[in-house]
Formats: sequence, C-alpha cells, structure tokens
Amino acid sequence: MDISGLLTSAGINISICAVLFSLYSVLRKQPSNASVYFTRRFISEPVRHDDPFDIYRFVPSAGWLMRAWKATDEELLEAGGVDAVVFMRIVVFSLRIFIIATVVCISLVLPVNYYGRDMQHKSLRVEPYDVFTIGNVHEGSKMLWAHCFALYVISFSAFVLLYLEYKSITKMRLAHITGSHPNPSHFTILVRGIPWSQDRSYSKSVESFFSTYYPNTYVAHQMVYRPSTVHKLKKDAEKMYRMLRPIETEYVRGDKPCYLCGGNAHTFKVIRHGEDGFRSQTTIDELHPTQIEKECPAAFVFFKNRYAAVVAAQVLQSSNPMLWVTQLAPEPHDVYWSNLSIPYKQVWVRKISSLLCALAFVFVFCLPVTFVQGLTRPDVLTVWFPQVKGLLKNPFINRVVTGYLPSVVLISLMYTVPPIMMLLSKIEGNVSRSERKRSACIKVLNFTIWNVFFVNVFSGSFIEQVSVFSKLQELPFQLAKQMPDQAAFFTTYVLSSGWASLACELIQLYNLVYNFILKFILRSKEEPTNMALTFPHHTEIPRMLLFGLLGFTFAILAPLILPFLLIYFSLAFLVYRNQLLHVYVTRYESAGLFWPVVHNTTIFSLVLTQVIAVAVFALKLSPVVSGATIPLIVFSLLFNEYCRKRFSQVFRRNPAQVLIEMDRRDEQMGREEGFYNQLRSEYCQLAYITRDLTISEDFSRAGPNRQHEDVVENSLKQGMHACSESFEPITDLIEYWLSNFQELSILSYRNSGRSGTDSPETCV
Amino acid sequence: MDISGLLTSAGINISICAVLFSLYSVLRKQPSNASVYFTRRFISEPVRHDDPFDIYRFVPSAGWLMRAWKATDEELLEAGGVDAVVFMRIVVFSLRIFIIATVVCISLVLPVNYYGRDMQHKSLRVEPYDVFTIGNVHEGSKMLWAHCFALYVISFSAFVLLYLEYKSITKMRLAHITGSHPNPSHFTILVRGIPWSQDRSYSKSVESFFSTYYPNTYVAHQMVYRPSTVHKLKKDAEKMYRMLRPIETEYVRGDKPCYLCGGNAHTFKVIRHGEDGFRSQTTIDELHPTQIEKECPAAFVFFKNRYAAVVAAQVLQSSNPMLWVTQLAPEPHDVYWSNLSIPYKQVWVRKISSLLCALAFVFVFCLPVTFVQGLTRPDVLTVWFPQVKGLLKNPFINRVVTGYLPSVVLISLMYTVPPIMMLLSKIEGNVSRSERKRSACIKVLNFTIWNVFFVNVFSGSFIEQVSVFSKLQELPFQLAKQMPDQAAFFTTYVLSSGWASLACELIQLYNLVYNFILKFILRSKEEPTNMALTFPHHTEIPRMLLFGLLGFTFAILAPLILPFLLIYFSLAFLVYRNQLLHVYVTRYESAGLFWPVVHNTTIFSLVLTQVIAVAVFALKLSPVVSGATIPLIVFSLLFNEYCRKRFSQVFRRNPAQVLIEMDRRDEQMGREEGFYNQLRSEYCQLAYITRDLTISEDFSRAGPNRQHEDVVENSLKQGMHACSESFEPITDLIEYWLSNFQELSILSYRNSGRSGTDSPETCV
Repeated sequence: MDISGLLTSAGINISICAVLFSLYSVLRKQPSNASVYFTRRFISEPVRHDDPFDIYRFVPSAGWLMRAWKATDEELLEAGGVDAVVFMRIVVFSLRIFIIATVVCISLVLPVNYYGRDMQHKSLRVEPYDVFTIGNVHEGSKMLWAHCFALYVISFSAFVLLYLEYKSITKMRLAHITGSHPNPSHFTILVRGIPWSQDRSYSKSVESFFSTYYPNTYVAHQMVYRPSTVHKLKKDAEKMYRMLRPIETEYVRGDKPCYLCGGNAHTFKVIRHGEDGFRSQTTIDELHPTQIEKECPAAFVFFKNRYAAVVAAQVLQSSNPMLWVTQLAPEPHDVYWSNLSIPYKQVWVRKISSLLCALAFVFVFCLPVTFVQGLTRPDVLTVWFPQVKGLLKNPFINRVVTGYLPSVVLISLMYTVPPIMMLLSKIEGNVSRSERKRSACIKVLNFTIWNVFFVNVFSGSFIEQVSVFSKLQELPFQLAKQMPDQAAFFTTYVLSSGWASLACELIQLYNLVYNFILKFILRSKEEPTNMALTFPHHTEIPRMLLFGLLGFTFAILAPLILPFLLIYFSLAFLVYRNQLLHVYVTRYESAGLFWPVVHNTTIFSLVLTQVIAVAVFALKLSPVVSGATIPLIVFSLLFNEYCRKRFSQVFRRNPAQVLIEMDRRDEQMGREEGFYNQLRSEYCQLAYITRDLTISEDFSRAGPNRQHEDVVENSLKQGMHACSESFEPITDLIEYWLSNFQELSILSYRNSGRSGTDSPETCV
Repeated sequence: MDISGLLTSAGINISICAVLFSLYSVLRKQPSNASVYFTRRFISEPVRHDDPFDIYRFVPSAGWLMRAWKATDEELLEAGGVDAVVFMRIVVFSLRIFIIATVVCISLVLPVNYYGRDMQHKSLRVEPYDVFTIGNVHEGSKMLWAHCFALYVISFSAFVLLYLEYKSITKMRLAHITGSHPNPSHFTILVRGIPWSQDRSYSKSVESFFSTYYPNTYVAHQMVYRPSTVHKLKKDAEKMYRMLRPIETEYVRGDKPCYLCGGNAHTFKVIRHGEDGFRSQTTIDELHPTQIEKECPAAFVFFKNRYAAVVAAQVLQSSNPMLWVTQLAPEPHDVYWSNLSIPYKQVWVRKISSLLCALAFVFVFCLPVTFVQGLTRPDVLTVWFPQVKGLLKNPFINRVVTGYLPSVVLISLMYTVPPIMMLLSKIEGNVSRSERKRSACIKVLNFTIWNVFFVNVFSGSFIEQVSVFSKLQELPFQLAKQMPDQAAFFTTYVLSSGWASLACELIQLYNLVYNFILKFILRSKEEPTNMALTFPHHTEIPRMLLFGLLGFTFAILAPLILPFLLIYFSLAFLVYRNQLLHVYVTRYESAGLFWPVVHNTTIFSLVLTQVIAVAVFALKLSPVVSGATIPLIVFSLLFNEYCRKRFSQVFRRNPAQVLIEMDRRDEQMGREEGFYNQLRSEYCQLAYITRDLTISEDFSRAGPNRQHEDVVENSLKQGMHACSESFEPITDLIEYWLSNFQELSILSYRNSGRSGTDSPETCV
C-alpha cells in the first residue's frame, strides 16, 4: 500500500465518521430518541417532552463535544462510578503516552526511517508505506540509536504515567470504600461449601457455625435457594400477574388510586422478615423436608461491623479448605444469583473447563482471521476468487478491497466474541456480575491480542502460526521481520476498526433501530425502558488495550501509525465521556478492579515492544544497540513486580486499618435504627428476581439505587393493606406463595409495565 | 554397556556398601564415637561410658537394622518432629509405588521388551542393556499396549497413594498445631515494614498501631535490633569472657562452687524484663537517639490468643501493602535473626536476584556435567585424553571408568551445590531457618532435575541442550529418543550415587574424622558437642525425588532400573530411620511444609513420564496407544489441581476453627501464670545470640528445649547475686553493657566451654 492508498482509507473513514457524528448530533436532539441517547436521565424520568418543531433540531452541531470535554471527573464519578473513571483513565493514559510517543517518533524516528537508505525518493503521494518504516534503515546504521533513544523515552514516560495512574486509582478505590455511606457488602460475607449434615438444614449449620466461632459479631444470615425454586415462584408470579392484568386493565389504569380503598391498585404487601403483620413464625427446621432441599450450600452472613466481615472473609475457616469458603460479598446489585447455587467443589473444574474452551475458541477463530488476512493480498484474492480479477484492476476498488474490506470483515467477526466469552465466564461460576465481566474482559483481551495482533502479524496458515510459537527463541526475530510489513494493515485497522467503532458506539445502532421500530412501526405508546445498559467494559477495555499494544509495538517501527492513533484516542476521550455521562447506567461496580488488568497488559505491550526492538536491532546487525535495549526489558519487569507488590493487594483485600476507622466513625455517630434488618433485605434472592421482572420500571421511577426500593415499598405497603380485604382470594394465594419462602424480605411487584422480560441479559 | 558391566558396577557397590555398613556397625559400638552416632542422646547426656574392652565390639552386626525397622512412627515423631515423619513418608511412598511398578514392569514390560524384536538372543551375561529397553520393541507393535497398561497402573496407584499421603500429612500438621502445649509462635506475629516516623521510635509506632487497632488482644511487642548492635554486644561478651577466663582458670575450675559465696563461680545474673532487681525503668523513647537508631523496622507482636494472632497475620493491615506487613512468627528457635533486619522493601528484589543467581548457577554447572557425561563414552574419552587409550583396553578398567567413574565425579561435584543454594536462600531474606531450608530445597531440587536428569539425557554440548529446550514441541520426542540409550547410565547412577550416598550418610565421615582428630590426635579431654546437626532436608529430599523421577520415567522404558531403585529405597528406609532416631537433632520445624514440594514434584515426574510415553508410542508408530495415553496426562493435571485446592491452603494458613477451639480449651483450663512474659523472653534476639555463643554447652546440659534455659537461668541467678560484690568492677561493666539493651530479657553466659564458635552454621 502506498501513501495515497492510506489517504483513501483515511478519507473514507473521516467522511464516515463526520457523517455519523453529524447524524448523531441531529438524532440526539430528537425527543423520540431520548431513551436511546439520554438513557441515564430517561430511566429516572421517562417522560417524553414533545418539543415544538424546530429547524434547529435538524442542523448538526458540535455542542455535545464541548460538553463532554468540559465535564469534570467528579461528574463522571457520580454518573458512572469508579469503573467509569478507571475506563477514562485508560483513555487519558493512552492519550498522554501517545502524545509523547508521537512527538518523539515523528520528529526523530520518522526522518531517520525516511532517509535511512540512499535512494531517490519519489513524490510523497506515491511513496510506498514501507519507506516510513524501520525496514528502510540500512543494516548496521548508527541511526538506530535514535530508535533506541525513542524507545527509552517512551518506556520511561510509560512507567511514570503508569505509576501515577496506579497510585491515583488505588486512592480512588480506597476513597470509594471509605466515602460511601454504609455499604451492605462491607458487612456481609458470602459463604460457600457449607458442609451437608444429615440431621440439620444448611441454614441451621450456618447459624451454628458462625454463632459458635463469631459469637460477638455475627448478626444473621440469608440462605441462597435453588434457582428452580425461585424460578417456580417467578412463574407463579407471572401467572398471577396475568390473572390480575385484565382486572387492572378494566378497572384501574395508570396510577389511578384503587376506588375501593384509595390506595394504589393491585400493589401487593411487602413482607419483611422480622416485622409485624405478615411475619412468618416458622423457622426453616420446622419446614417440610422438601423446603430444606431447596437450600443451596451457600449463604450470605451479616456481621456487626466491617472489620469482623473482612476478618471472616480473609481468614481460612476450616481445616478442609473446600468447606466454609468465605469471601466478601459482592454488592447486592452485583450478585449473580444463578451462579450461587453452583457447588463450590465444582468451581475449579468449571474454571479449568471454561479456560480450555476459551483457548480452543481462540485457535478455531484463527481460520476466518487467516482468510481475512488473505484479502489484503490481491494475488491471494485472485487465486481464491478468479472472477474478481477484473474488478481489482480498478485502482479505487483495489484499494477499498485490499485496504478497507479486510478490517470490516474482521470487525464483524469480532462482534461474536464478547457474548461467547461472557457465556464462558458465566459457566466459570463467577458469583458477581462485575467479576463475570472482568473475567470476560480478560478472555476477550487475550483473544484480541492473539487473533488480531499475532495472527495478523504472522499472516500464514494456522499451522505456520503455531509452529512460529513453538520455537520460542525465534519468535522475536519472526516478529521483527514481519511487523514492518504489516504496519500498513494495522494503520488501516486503526482507521477502520478504531474510528468506525467510536461512531457506532455513539450512534447506538441497535437501540436506535429498536426504538424506531417500537415507536414508528409498532406505534407503541409506552416508552421503551429496557434499553438501560451497563458499560461494556469487556469489549471496550480490550479494544483500548489492543490499540495501545499497536501503538507501542509500531511506535519505533512504523511511526506513521501514531497520528491516527492519537486521533482515535482523542475521539474516544470525547465519545466515551459523552456516553458514560448520558447513556450507560451503573448498576454495580468493581471499584477499579479493571486497572490491574490494564496495567499488566500495558507492561506486556511494553516488554513485547522492547523484545521486538532487540530483535530488530539484532537483525539490522547492530548488536550494541540491541544490547543497550536489554536493560530496559529487565527494568520493565522489575517495575511491574514493584507495582504488583505496592498496589495489587489493595485490589484483592480491603485493608483492616481503613475499615476499623470507618467502624469507629460509625460507632461514634451511632448506626441508624434497623440497619441490620435492611442488610438482610438487601441480599434477598426473590427481591432480585422480581426486580428483574420489573427492572425497567423500577429504574423509571426512582433510579437504580437503594432509595427507590423504599419508595416503592412504602407506597405498596399501604395500598396492599387497604386492598387486601377486597381481593381476599388473591391475597390467600399470595400468602401461600410467600410462605414458600422463609427468608423473603421484600417483594415489589408493580401493577403496570411489561412483565417477564429477560432484561438481566440486556443489562449485563 | 552390557549386563556384565552392570553387574560389575553392582558388585563394586554392593561390596562397598557391605563394607561400609559393617564398618558402621562396628564404629557405632565404640564408646568414643557416641558423639558421632548417637548425637541426639549424647547432647542431652554427654558422658562417655568407657565400657571394658569386649571382642563383641569389633564384630559387625545387623541389630541396628532391626531396631530401625521396628521403630514406630510415634517414636520417630517424638525424635524428629513432623518433618522427620514427612521425610520418611517420602521414602515409604517411593517404596510402595516402586514395589507396584517393579511387579508390573518386571512381569509384564520386561519380557515384552526382551522379546520385542525377532532376533537371536545371546547369553544373558553378554546381552547388551538395550535389549531390555523399549528400544528393542519393533515399530507398530501391538505389545506397546502392555506399556500403556503398565503406565496406567503406575499412575493410578501413584494418585491413590499421593492422595492418602497428602491427607494423612495434613492431619499430622493439624495434630501438630493442636497437640502441642501452648506454642509461642501461635501467639506471635512478625511485623515488617514499620513506617519510619520522625518524632517517634519504631517501638512506639508498633505500640501505638497495635494498641489502636487491636486494643483487646494486643499484649506486647519485642523489637528487632540491628545485627551490628547485637554483634558489638557479642564482641564485648567475648572480650569480657577473655578477661574472666584467666581468673577462672586460676581459682575455680570445673563446676566447683565459688569459695566466696557458695554459688557457682563466675556465672552472671540473668536479667529478665519485668522482674525485680536489675529491671531497667527507662523506656525506648527516653533513650539516647543513637539507641533508637539501633532498632530495625521489624518487631514481634504478641497477642492474647491464637485466633487474634492469626487474624492479625492474615488480614491486610494497611492501605499501603508494603507497610505493616504481617505474618505468623516462626517458632523461636526457627527465627533467622540476621535476616530480620533486612528492610521489607528489599525483599522482593532479593528474591528475584537470588532466583536469577540460582538460574545462572544451574546453567554454568552444565559445563562440568557435560564433561562427566563424556566420560561414559570411551570414544570421547580417548579424544580428550589420548594417553588413557592403552588403559581402556583392559576391560575391567574400561568398565570402571565408563560405568562408575562418571557417577563418582558427578556426585563429588554435586556436593558443592547445597551450600551455594543455602547461601542464596539466605540472601533471599527468609526470616526463618525452616523457610530458608525449604527454599534451598526447592532450588537444589530444580538444580538436580535439570543438571542430573535433563543434561545427562541430552548428553551433548551446552548449546545443543539449550536449543533442545527452545523447540518445546520437539522436547518430548527428543527425550523419547534419548532416554532408552541413557538407561544404563542412570542405572549405574542409582547404584553408585544412591547406594554409596546411603553408606556415607550412615558413616558420617566428616564428624567421624573430626571426632577422631579431636580425641586421638589432639587428645582433647572435652567431648565435642558441636556436632549436633539438624536433618539436611535440602539435600536429602531432592535426592529422593530425583530417584523417584528416574524410577517413574524409566519404569516402562527400561524396567531393569527398578529392582536397583527398590533396593535403594529399602536401604534408605532403614538408614534414614536410624539416623533420624539417633543422629540428627530437631531444633525447629516447618510442620510438614516440605510435603507440597514433594507432591508437586511427583506430579511433575508422572506428567513427564506420560508425555515421554506419548512421544515414545508416537515414535514407535502406534498413534492409537499414544492417543490412549493423553487422557492420563489430563487426569494427572486435574488430580494435582484438586489436591492443591483440597489441601495446600492448610500448609499456608492456620485454620481459624482449630485455633478458636484451642483458645477456648485454654481459657477453660486457665492459662499458666506469667505466660505472656515468657512469650516475650522467647523472642529475645540477644538470648539467641548468646545461645549461639554457648550452643554446644546448652545442648550438652539440658537438651535443645526451653527447659534448659530455665535450669541455666535459675542456677546462674543465685550465683551471680552472691558473687556480684566480690567482682564489683566487672559487674559494673556488665551493668553498663546490659543497659545498652532495653528489651534484654535473658543472658546466659557460662564460665566453661569454648567461646565464639560459629556453631549456627554447622547447625543449620
């Protein structure tokens, strides 16, 4: 590919981006699209403001870019939590390091490459791309010191920036722990591997274990039930809902009060364990044996203070490490209930199996990628498809097919990967949604690095690629040989995959179309409220890191890629800020657990870059330069080890000092009445199942936080009490249904809205 | 090598062993050798019983073998602690698995190998060794299923035995934790990385930290001081000893009472912190600034109960994981004081450096090993040393040189390895002697596997060997090709290195000669008491595991090695039992921490065996048999993972449940008076330094346990009080000297015996 080919590709992408960005700026002004582009605000206030027609609504504008730019980190933290800020830190880090890299490499390395060989330079327009790569520097050149110097500058800038980021994110994580008002997950541990006993239930075992060994701090516990049991209850609920629906449609519509009692119509009583009224006096051991069977050997255990919980979570409980396995509980919204019922003994087998599946998937995926890579070479293409030979003679079509099409095919293929990895992470048995997403993120990341980077560099057959990896000492040399040749491909990859993915991210095509069909074709009057998505860290972080890897590895080999990357990261900064502020909701968060992954991957990228540089210098017959680069590798590894020692523990375990101080502060201020009861209700399995049932609405009324529960709950309680007499047969049914569930604490079941949507999967 | 060569080698070794074993049985009966062969009993009762001359004393006997055989595990546990039993379990496990392997392979695999090819068999005596290896089975033979079957039997027997051993050793470890009378290390944690503060001492910082965050359970702490400070005190002590020595020689000799006061002469007062009398009222913060500077940022912190200590040790204390790093303290005798002063921030760098040094050493060592390997080939030998050509024509000398000499050279070289690895493990910064030994054990093990096994299998040049490892997928095939050819070498290695090392172990040549020189040449009247050695796990475990590796890998390839191995393990069983019961002392123990290393290595050996088998079957053109072996590899890895999950945690962390129950039992029984004071004195740095000074005697009087301290202490106290007036100038000096040390709790300094011996190194 020559420079004009590259410019064609850039031109296509710039125009596509410009069009899509303009389109976005128009679409976001349409009130009907509020649910797509302002989902965050919309779900808390789902009212459609039908503005009067205004020509201004159809004029593209750039105001949103300015607003995204001006938003502060505090706003972002409030909107998206620590994870959103961490994601933006990745972008900011990439921006900073590639600004440095661009300045150094364009001013120093690019001229060296261009004038690296005594040759007659053609017009810049038709100059082949290779002239700008290190391939153009002649063997044994003293100018390779420039590359070595640039590598040192980039590496040390990266170390400094990485250290500062790790430090500030650790601080942010600690601030998140200390800053939040009492977080139920700090007082709660998840116990798995409860031993089976013939003569008593799991619940009784848990109670006896913790009241024996933690008598002063143990408060209560909450069993996890088999999903089938919960599922049956959910089914019953749906059936009942269908029974009630016609009555509702007939008599009470919308938010009108029940005309019998004045309360809200058809809202059911909230039964809270330990309260008066519907309080069930039966304990689990008085229940029917079949009910005991519904328990899983897992439970949430609540403690008096944070320190007690963290101790119980970090200490080895039993002399059999497969029993009484404890960990700090995930936040209530973060719990992945369906995986809690997996016996702990299975978890390690599941982890290994899913790892093997992921590995197998990575290798199987090589085949289509190899096919795509073939598209970049017209000679291969004409062998595969002789009929396109004529078409390829047209230089424009040739450029599009060889320069642009491969990336498009690759991106489309890549879209199938995250859902599959997500599924594997589910099978793995992760107990929290954030953990599942993090696990998927790591899988997608490894997949991407292998299948986009390595497979494309070694653009041979599958067997060839594997054989390259089997000769480990030759790998750097193979990379060094192949990479300059593949620089053009990766530059267009940045242009197409990078820029276009940002535009797609902005447009939210799927939701836009869904919204359009719903409103203008199906002519639904209801606002679609199930579009609330959490931020897809597991697709976006690997993408960022892949571009980081490309940037580092090509920085000194083919610096021409850097300006395009810089544009990508600048756009990403604006686009993702906008999206995090307006589109994505935060239902759970890992409080920065993604950062260690990012840090490790960046170190991997740096070390890979340095190893390739050593090999390149060696191939260029400059052993001294090559040798001078080796200390950098050692330093990178030492730096990584230092950061691991210095920071990573805080991401795995909560420090006692911090928690004890929080506990003391709480004690001084006095804990609010009924806090421990509230703790229990937070971790109620049924509450989450029913919440999933009505997820869209819950969000639509009071936002995705704790308070909405209370709002719903209080209003329901009154309504239910008042209505219960007039609907006696139904309340009987409900009571029977509720009595099935011993530890039931809250059931919010609303009288309007869609039921039974499988929204959890859309909200992952 | 043919069978007669093998038999020559076996003959030599059997005669050497028979002679040495007989010699041992005679030597052990000589009263003058009691300090060499009954060191355990001798150090607690160092009286020489001069039996009357008896002809029976010079007749070899086998009674000791019977006594070693009949000793129970309980006796062994009492004599050598859990680590001794664990070591014997390695031998027992090896015996069991190789009995099974020998039965299966000799009855099934050996005939298949021997009749594997249609050929005229010569007389068995001159039959080459290769005829008994798998190399003799022709390609594509159906008889390879016999090998596959044997491999399955061996692997599954190994799994069952390994599981049972791991389980019983876990139980033993827990029994060791629960069974012992209150162990100071259970109540104590070691804190490192105490942050530096301008306005207060480390001691004050520790006190304030633990009394703030562990107000209910914190008892006291004990700082660690700079070794230079302690060293200066030791020097002073030596000087003073030299001052006192002439007086002593003149006036009071032996254990005569001081004629001034009636007490023991020249024994110094024992000052115990918190007692009356010499108790120092100054606190650290009132001390001179230079004294604060003597503190290291490390301390032992004592807690009220075991659970509190384990919590403090397992919980992450600070938000900076490099500060307030806690771990359970090693047992007092196990503490490696000189490493405690290493700043925690350095530890990770030291670990990496020593790892790199160990790696470098492994590779440098390849050179002499390659030389040794050359000795086995007469053609190579004659090229190197043309002058030996004539000698080699003599068939006996040829057999000795090619069959025996290489092993002897290799063994001699190998003797330099453990001290070097021990030194590296010291540099690493391990805080306990057992941890240092374990770390050295792992290093020696890796060294042995690489330099004895792999380097000898690939008996080429260094570069060739490395290049074999760089092509990972070819490694199994290379092994499969080379191993049958090297079977003869390894068989003689078992004969020479294995059997001879046992005889050497029995004879204790170094101590025997030392004892002889001392008594019969130097004519010393004093009994040598510095021969007390702890068991050298770091040399013996790698040796056992190496023979295990040889047994597994050669079992189906060249089963002729198995009978020799079986004899080796049977002898090892008797010899090591005898030595553990009579020779080695137990000063500290890791409570079975060596087992996970053994388990992992055995799994490694099994997997390597299976991988080699897969490659061998593939090379023999039997893809079906090869494929049928692969599931075994998968199962081995899964089995290992399961064991890791099931058991290994208990070897890393003490389970809370067990400790809480012990605490409760203690509470019910009431803790003995002054227990916490005793705790502090247990971890007194100076006590250990002075103990090292006088180690030989301390052992000679009251054995290596706590009680002797009290004996020494009480007798000293009275003597000192009585004598203090008559030696006023000296006591003044002592007082000045003692006041230098704030936390000094016990100083036992005796008036007889050798001073300043560097015994700690001989007692490692």
